[in-house]
Amino acid sequence: MQNVLLGIDIGGTNIKIGCLDSGLKIIDKVSKLNRSDIEPQEMVELIVADCKKLLAQAGLVFAQVQSIGVGSPGPLDPKSGILKSAPNLKKFHNTPLREMLSKKMGKPVVLENDANAACWGERIAGAGSGGDDMVFLTLGTGIGGGIVSNGQLIRGTSGEAAELGHIIIYPGGRLCGCGQRGCVEAYASATNTAKRAIENLQQNNKSTLKKILETNGKITCKDVFGCAQQGDEFAKQMVEQTAEALGLVCVNILHVTQPQRIVFGGGMIAAGKYLLDKIQYHFDKYIWTIKKEDIQLCFATLGEDAGIIGAAALAREL
Amino acid sequence: MQNVLLGIDIGGTNIKIGCLDSGLKIIDKVSKLNRSDIEPQEMVELIVADCKKLLAQAGLVFAQVQSIGVGSPGPLDPKSGILKSAPNLKKFHNTPLREMLSKKMGKPVVLENDANAACWGERIAGAGSGGDDMVFLTLGTGIGGGIVSNGQLIRGTSGEAAELGHIIIYPGGRLCGCGQRGCVEAYASATNTAKRAIENLQQNNKSTLKKILETNGKITCKDVFGCAQQGDEFAKQMVEQTAEALGLVCVNILHVTQPQRIVFGGGMIAAGKYLLDKIQYHFDKYIWTIKKEDIQLCFATLGEDAGIIGAAALAREL
Repeated sequence: MQNVLLGIDIGGTNIKIGCLDSGLKIIDKVSKLNRSDIEPQEMVELIVADCKKLLAQAGLVFAQVQSIGVGSPGPLDPKSGILKSAPNLKKFHNTPLREMLSKKMGKPVVLENDANAACWGERIAGAGSGGDDMVFLTLGTGIGGGIVSNGQLIRGTSGEAAELGHIIIYPGGRLCGCGQRGCVEAYASATNTAKRAIENLQQNNKSTLKKILETNGKITCKDVFGCAQQGDEFAKQMVEQTAEALGLVCVNILHVTQPQRIVFGGGMIAAGKYLLDKIQYHFDKYIWTIKKEDIQLCFATLGEDAGIIGAAALAREL
Repeated sequence: MQNVLLGIDIGGTNIKIGCLDSGLKIIDKVSKLNRSDIEPQEMVELIVADCKKLLAQAGLVFAQVQSIGVGSPGPLDPKSGILKSAPNLKKFHNTPLREMLSKKMGKPVVLENDANAACWGERIAGAGSGGDDMVFLTLGTGIGGGIVSNGQLIRGTSGEAAELGHIIIYPGGRLCGCGQRGCVEAYASATNTAKRAIENLQQNNKSTLKKILETNGKITCKDVFGCAQQGDEFAKQMVEQTAEALGLVCVNILHVTQPQRIVFGGGMIAAGKYLLDKIQYHFDKYIWTIKKEDIQLCFATLGEDAGIIGAAALAREL
């Protein structure tokens, strides 16, 4: 009877569950809606029920589950398995999530920060595989990060390392949700790329984005990249600022952990080579001339599955 | 017969050699002049001769040496033991320094970046002891760094991690020796603190530093701190900029590896609590409000011995 792993990726909007073989191949997966006001106990029961359904659907039984990996928004402490709090899971405060799941499942459970889990997925099975030193940056609503150094996740003294979106690149700059000013996230996340565009539109009546805002009542990051690629000067300027902030933060990350690869994930990478070339341009502009760097900037390859694959890979090590 | 360790700290100006017991207590030590134009083979022979003299002086024999640790300026690769180059050791280019020393000594040798060795010394026997996550910043001619995460030195993909002096804090700012603009080193190293003072003196005729420059033909970082502590407004402003740059880089470092402690070493820490309080002030000003951080900013405690103690501690692990 084949052993399987469960990889669970908890988000404020969705919970993704994957059933994987020991080679980390996804046998089957499911995505369920989550609610930001869900109670911890209710969420645990929901997860357990969905895991069982998923296994049945794949023709497997619960006894075949070797261990379970869970990626969750944080801050959380992987050592104690406690979810301290999460902006998108309002009822969770110092919740012993690992213990609750482990008790209910009767299986070993590992709890990891969601960005770290996705980072680990890319490191084991995606764009970071084949190297021991990588950094992962997710470009979405915020900017999340994960760091692998010498083959190990860098977790920090209480599990809160790799908050890479909050590296300050422009002191005194834009106010970030975290309370700091000038964080890279305040410029270069998908949300803030769209926000910057809206804020600066007043002075740019010629931009197609103005019409989009009038028609749709909003502008998305996708709109900004779309217009930029069609040659809209204002949109191009907004994209340039995003890429410059990202190039700059890559220089700073390089000087801290010297990865051989920085891997970008998240929704924004749908912009493709157009975005990557611009980040590389600004990286090359800011990096020192004292010596040539071998670092590679590239895109993640696992897409939405990175979280469940990474969580399962961490569970495999239990 | 007691086993001993040798810890060697190579600098462009001096070579320090320590003979330590297995508890890392220094039995005896010596400091010899080095030259920036010394040939690799000559330096190796000099080191071996000085080690033998030091041992004899301590009533020990070479057979008692268990292993040897060497800290050297770099870039160097600890894995291969090759010193790629060093600005203050002009004749060294891809020199297999570890192998040369090991062959000549007939003992196991470990080669490590000098800042990493000093960091490891502080981590094992100094201000970082008792914790698994620390960062070390040396404030001298340049700003060097070392990172310990989960009890291990972060070396990066080719041994060049922790170049913390070259984190860019002010994009487009002062030109750094590395070719980048706005590095923290370009503002807050001892050398650059003095340089900034000299550059800005023209507009500040009232400062005591003006008289010092006229009398001595130069200004040192010590002069700047001395005048600041005596209430000189211009000197206070220069110190404030140094402390602000350091506070800011500490915020950024925290968000990457989340150490429990950032330890400052190097000549500048002679300024004492006056400096540390200012760094803390700026750290507190820049850090996020989303949650309280437990990180401790403090001074190194091993002084000039950190390098030889750290090198010996690394040798002990061979």
